[in-house]
Amino acid sequence: MKALVLQEKLKLSLQEIDVPEELGPGDVRIRVMRVGICGSDLHYYKHGKIGHYVITAPMVLGHEAAGVVTETGWEVKHLRPGDRVCMEPGIPDVSSRASRLGHYNIDPSVTFWATPPIHGCLTPSVVHPAAFTYKLPDNVSFAEGAMVEPFAIGMQAATKAGLKPGDTAAVVGAGTIGIMVALATLAGGAARVILADLATEKLAVAGRYQGIIPVNIRDTSLTETVSELTGGWGADVVFEASGSPTAYDNLIDLVAPAGTLVLVGCPVNRVPFDVIRALSKEIRIETVFRYANVYDKAISLISSGRVDLKPLLSGTFPFGQGVQAFERAAEGRPSDIKLQIDLEDIG
Amino acid sequence: MKALVLQEKLKLSLQEIDVPEELGPGDVRIRVMRVGICGSDLHYYKHGKIGHYVITAPMVLGHEAAGVVTETGWEVKHLRPGDRVCMEPGIPDVSSRASRLGHYNIDPSVTFWATPPIHGCLTPSVVHPAAFTYKLPDNVSFAEGAMVEPFAIGMQAATKAGLKPGDTAAVVGAGTIGIMVALATLAGGAARVILADLATEKLAVAGRYQGIIPVNIRDTSLTETVSELTGGWGADVVFEASGSPTAYDNLIDLVAPAGTLVLVGCPVNRVPFDVIRALSKEIRIETVFRYANVYDKAISLISSGRVDLKPLLSGTFPFGQGVQAFERAAEGRPSDIKLQIDLEDIG
Amino acid sequence: MKALVLQEKLKLSLQEIDVPEELGPGDVRIRVMRVGICGSDLHYYKHGKIGHYVITAPMVLGHEAAGVVTETGWEVKHLRPGDRVCMEPGIPDVSSRASRLGHYNIDPSVTFWATPPIHGCLTPSVVHPAAFTYKLPDNVSFAEGAMVEPFAIGMQAATKAGLKPGDTAAVVGAGTIGIMVALATLAGGAARVILADLATEKLAVAGRYQGIIPVNIRDTSLTETVSELTGGWGADVVFEASGSPTAYDNLIDLVAPAGTLVLVGCPVNRVPFDVIRALSKEIRIETVFRYANVYDKAISLISSGRVDLKPLLSGTFPFGQGVQAFERAAEGRPSDIKLQIDLEDIG
Amino acid sequence: MKALVLQEKLKLSLQEIDVPEELGPGDVRIRVMRVGICGSDLHYYKHGKIGHYVITAPMVLGHEAAGVVTETGWEVKHLRPGDRVCMEPGIPDVSSRASRLGHYNIDPSVTFWATPPIHGCLTPSVVHPAAFTYKLPDNVSFAEGAMVEPFAIGMQAATKAGLKPGDTAAVVGAGTIGIMVALATLAGGAARVILADLATEKLAVAGRYQGIIPVNIRDTSLTETVSELTGGWGADVVFEASGSPTAYDNLIDLVAPAGTLVLVGCPVNRVPFDVIRALSKEIRIETVFRYANVYDKAISLISSGRVDLKPLLSGTFPFGQGVQAFERAAEGRPSDIKLQIDLEDIG
Repeated sequence: MKALVLQEKLKLSLQEIDVPEELGPGDVRIRVMRVGICGSDLHYYKHGKIGHYVITAPMVLGHEAAGVVTETGWEVKHLRPGDRVCMEPGIPDVSSRASRLGHYNIDPSVTFWATPPIHGCLTPSVVHPAAFTYKLPDNVSFAEGAMVEPFAIGMQAATKAGLKPGDTAAVVGAGTIGIMVALATLAGGAARVILADLATEKLAVAGRYQGIIPVNIRDTSLTETVSELTGGWGADVVFEASGSPTAYDNLIDLVAPAGTLVLVGCPVNRVPFDVIRALSKEIRIETVFRYANVYDKAISLISSGRVDLKPLLSGTFPFGQGVQAFERAAEGRPSDIKLQIDLEDIG
Repeated sequence: MKALVLQEKLKLSLQEIDVPEELGPGDVRIRVMRVGICGSDLHYYKHGKIGHYVITAPMVLGHEAAGVVTETGWEVKHLRPGDRVCMEPGIPDVSSRASRLGHYNIDPSVTFWATPPIHGCLTPSVVHPAAFTYKLPDNVSFAEGAMVEPFAIGMQAATKAGLKPGDTAAVVGAGTIGIMVALATLAGGAARVILADLATEKLAVAGRYQGIIPVNIRDTSLTETVSELTGGWGADVVFEASGSPTAYDNLIDLVAPAGTLVLVGCPVNRVPFDVIRALSKEIRIETVFRYANVYDKAISLISSGRVDLKPLLSGTFPFGQGVQAFERAAEGRPSDIKLQIDLEDIG
Repeated sequence: MKALVLQEKLKLSLQEIDVPEELGPGDVRIRVMRVGICGSDLHYYKHGKIGHYVITAPMVLGHEAAGVVTETGWEVKHLRPGDRVCMEPGIPDVSSRASRLGHYNIDPSVTFWATPPIHGCLTPSVVHPAAFTYKLPDNVSFAEGAMVEPFAIGMQAATKAGLKPGDTAAVVGAGTIGIMVALATLAGGAARVILADLATEKLAVAGRYQGIIPVNIRDTSLTETVSELTGGWGADVVFEASGSPTAYDNLIDLVAPAGTLVLVGCPVNRVPFDVIRALSKEIRIETVFRYANVYDKAISLISSGRVDLKPLLSGTFPFGQGVQAFERAAEGRPSDIKLQIDLEDIG
Repeated sequence: MKALVLQEKLKLSLQEIDVPEELGPGDVRIRVMRVGICGSDLHYYKHGKIGHYVITAPMVLGHEAAGVVTETGWEVKHLRPGDRVCMEPGIPDVSSRASRLGHYNIDPSVTFWATPPIHGCLTPSVVHPAAFTYKLPDNVSFAEGAMVEPFAIGMQAATKAGLKPGDTAAVVGAGTIGIMVALATLAGGAARVILADLATEKLAVAGRYQGIIPVNIRDTSLTETVSELTGGWGADVVFEASGSPTAYDNLIDLVAPAGTLVLVGCPVNRVPFDVIRALSKEIRIETVFRYANVYDKAISLISSGRVDLKPLLSGTFPFGQGVQAFERAAEGRPSDIKLQIDLEDIG
């Protein structure tokens, strides 16, 4: 079977791999149709590692996927061959303490597609637990299905925020994840989302959504904008989605008294945190690690039309041009939000 | 000053009243511009009482109002003359135990417009606490401002539901309040709202909103519809907004395991409640009494375009034809959702 | 292997059974040492059924157990032979939707000890998933370990109540479960628990705990007691643990504004529920079905001395006198709270 | 009227003051009987300021008080002359947005006893809003009543922690506030509280409470202790009550996956915060600023015997020796937890 394999930093190629394909009783076999390129895929491609995770053996990339079920294990009830699906890339131990509590995303024994040494899904066929495989309604395309994964991070952030209907939110950072957070927050109950970044092109794409108020912090003060729009009260919920340490400088100033700050971005080092300012407003801080129990709700929002991810798709490459897709991603074009690889013509 | 005064059952007239108009330091004086007719106004008009509340002396009707500030007490900071506003009709003791807890709506000492013996606001000028008077943005009309009150009940219900982004909701009852609940729930994070009633006309109006799925229970099983749309799981949140005891027959069947039931409607007598079925799903039940701390968020949703109340306005009468407005309301036309009285030309 | 087997109503005997004892990779084999008699065991013994669950083939009784691990599957990490343990009697599908959400107790596919057709644990050796087997600290006896199960229901109720430190609680019903709820509530943060029943003996046992205020409703008004002790405000949390429909007559009157009602008891039929009174206080209602994720916390409370279950043990019978133990339970002595069967001398 | 007045740094004396004593309709006049010395009183005494709050005019110290009502305004219903009471030292604008939401503690317009330029209560008579004056049961002494204020901070922390029954907690810092947090957490539902500090004497006092596990971090690793006691899982709730920046070094390591960190202590400068470690466990962080709506629950816990504050009282000085009391406090004796001034013999 062919797969898009990273051997080491920048050494990516389409090659034959030999992956075990045994189908367990609770598993499904899936013909992969569409895979998105995530920032982490790109990071492995460019640097050969992310933190402690280092590519030491050839690894298939890709974890944002949609496809079609081709075979089901005998215990599987909710799926059948022919079902169009998307998949959660993390497989937890469902018996673990964290999983039993409903937090399977933070089970330390999770294995995750395209996180060494686990192969990803940029290959035409994968085996996956049915419990983490979700049926796509007819009106949700494979392209949208493969965007459920990054959107799920936004959903997790919006869910943990505990949004109340009509809240005003602010999102710091308009990268792909920041935009996903903004869309999930808007669909999740916010009246409006103030989205801040330096990247004019990304703000332009995001600003086309009704309810998103783009702020280019190159020339506009985010603190003042939030204050003006909220009569000096602050945003009910603020999301840090940039991972930039400088975002922390005035972060608490954005939050309303008794408001919520949700940390999504990953600053490499410790950040200087202003405890006293946080205390004086009694803010609550939530943190987000991947997602749990949001895929079905994400799909509902896309299918019902409450969320439209299609404008975020910046380019699609056939599987045979998978390397070129990564080269394009590595360019970092300002207007690229999501690039995908189409595997429909392989097989 | 003229007012629309109910003297006893069906005896309604425009007449001069003598209302104290002293302006306290925390009060504002408001030129009332628009007032909606609520089911409770209509009930007093038709029956002269609601439960223990009996009209024993002439009382001005009306509690859904918007207007313009004409004067402010010396302590008032967030409002100034000329501000367009809408008002919460209930005035609690802000020092009470319930108010200190943030639940000022259930403070037993609340006085409420047009609840005997308190005069309502169907009169050109009222004095009101600034703390319960909310500024309307320029793009929110008086007609919309006067609908914030009934919409606030929907907001309270949606807020107490603890909606998660992408939830599937069901609302039993498509009266004015049921529709308000459906709209607040949709704006408040639901992917879709299944709205059930017998009234074809009201379902038709509500069904025009994207995301509302009308179900006429005269010919369609609500239980089956919910089951089909949720793959047999049930709705994450179910709102009882009909007040009908028969609604309770299969109510729990609609709710997903660990889901939420929100009681909004007021059945006159006790209802037979199926405790064991509720236990076996470990559902949570929330109850709603008016609203607290939702007006600003309701206004945000209207102003940002996330909620459009304009299609619910079925007719507007000038102040001089206020009696006719009530006569029309008393007809109970199936397509009438909200009737309002316009006071702009008086004064 | 011997077991205490119910063949049909009142036909209980110690007899040899042939139970499959295959040890899966995530299982442990347990030498059962102590088993409590639950109201459901007794109900099967007296009536041969509970609702739809009917004894149609011989079934081992018992689901409240403690013992010692004798063998572990190869995947088991947190237990080893010799560990003293207690067990959750319900085994869910850990991959199910409810389980993934953290609510494994309401997974419809749960199998539960001594619920037909599943054998219980009144037998010297059982095989059980390690994930639902909990280590007992040295200072927790088998007798206490076998009471973790009924106490867990109290824990679930107290957890779902969302108790705040210093709350005043009321518990209606001082049966075994009512007392367990009272103890978990007290340990779980309440300043005091008003416990109501007609049974003088049970109230006497419970009333010996500091913080429990027994009220015999034969001669004292519970409503008035709660009102007096709370300055007219009501109890922050009220638990219905009697299952009696008459308990619902004035139940809402006991609850404080914005307070919580937790339903634990199972009335056989629908109960007349006062929706309007519930709405007017905006109370929240939680429901309890068994328990999830509380065993470890229950054991911590027992081990730390914050909860003492020992006074609730009313009698212990050796395994050989298991039938007599059930006969005694069937007597329904007013002072019997928990009877247990000791299996240490068998094996 | 005499009062203990601070004129500037270290210049404290008993002197006559002229304080307005007008009694508003919602106020009570209180004969102050007992006042505790707080760390903030001491800080003003030693440094003449706290941050931006500077003593520029003579100010009465003291804000932890209990006394007896001597007169009530005409609107006051729940108190009468002769009632023994304690008082919340902060007076918010009860109409403010924060207060309406139930968070009157973070209303920016709060005035607080002994925070410049507001006089404190170290004087025999004060006037106070009845809404923030709480009746003491007969079995709660003035000494205990005057400790409700510092205990309330512990209560706020334990309440915001969202403790579940049987949680394991850790408290970093065994100063007066740390101990108050530990006691409120224990009473609020924890099975056990691991309390860490360098101060042997304070740990010795705290360690006498059943359920508190003192850890002297001079010779014992807190991280390892928490890990051992929780089987490697971590504490469900961790409170930072030291205000020391070094406490943040390994703080996240103490917290269980999906656990909660509550920030109570005030580090002077920003602290380096490990966002990635927090994200990877998806911990929630709560912050505490004074308290709201906990006084009545604190009093319930003291009255019911669930919390015993008496062992924390290290010394009592008559009003005439108030200056000596502050001199003693300034010594910083390791065994001093709470010093109080007794005003009963003045008047």
